[in-house]
Amino acid sequence: MGFTSRIDVDLDVPDAIEAVTAALKDQGFRVLTRIDVQATLKEKLDVDTEPQVILGACNPTLAHQALEIDPRIAALLPCNVVVRREDGRTVIEALDPNLIATIPDDDALRPVAADAAHRLRAAMAAVAQSPTRR
Amino acid sequence: MGFTSRIDVDLDVPDAIEAVTAALKDQGFRVLTRIDVQATLKEKLDVDTEPQVILGACNPTLAHQALEIDPRIAALLPCNVVVRREDGRTVIEALDPNLIATIPDDDALRPVAADAAHRLRAAMAAVAQSPTRR
Repeated sequence: MGFTSRIDVDLDVPDAIEAVTAALKDQGFRVLTRIDVQATLKEKLDVDTEPQVILGACNPTLAHQALEIDPRIAALLPCNVVVRREDGRTVIEALDPNLIATIPDDDALRPVAADAAHRLRAAMAAVAQSPTRR
Repeated sequence: MGFTSRIDVDLDVPDAIEAVTAALKDQGFRVLTRIDVQATLKEKLDVDTEPQVILGACNPTLAHQALEIDPRIAALLPCNVVVRREDGRTVIEALDPNLIATIPDDDALRPVAADAAHRLRAAMAAVAQSPTRR
């Protein structure tokens, strides 16, 4: 079952992070958190993994709407956008916010989650179509 | 449907954050990210809301196991633990990691998610039983 959407890009990880951060901003999302998974796993477990960064993106308007409907939604915020290397390519993979609406039995959340999902997909499409992508 | 577990404590938000951060550490989770939701919504939308902080907690061993099984899991990491005021009390609410195992059809993830869930519950139980709780 899919709970993420992904694109593969011909950018290195830093460039992909820069591109997706700009595209997210155009859709009203700010990147609030950034976890360097590769560095964390190296530091804590001394294991070598591919480059991987988890960006926590938040659209304050949509987040506020969702939290007004169901405060438990905070446990699912922000929306993660992961940038990682896999098989010699760079993958950008976002959590599908529609997941949020499927969990609580709350119809009021559906349009908010759908709006967030639409915007995240638009941001990823913008990166996929950017001229920096070979 | 429940996708979080919560406790209500008689601590203020800063003390609850301190207590749950220490209890998470005892269970192998480090707090990697911290989002002040109240401050973010005030700054971005000029709306007044109750104090609320989202802590992103990561157990590197469990995260590594989960990512080896299914790299898409990164989109659901770290495990959020939310501390917020609600009706004059402080609520500590954690995402139930078992959610992770219900989404992909991947039985190998279940024990990892169950381990994470057990540890998060133990951390919250420790806070609930701490002598600082009235």
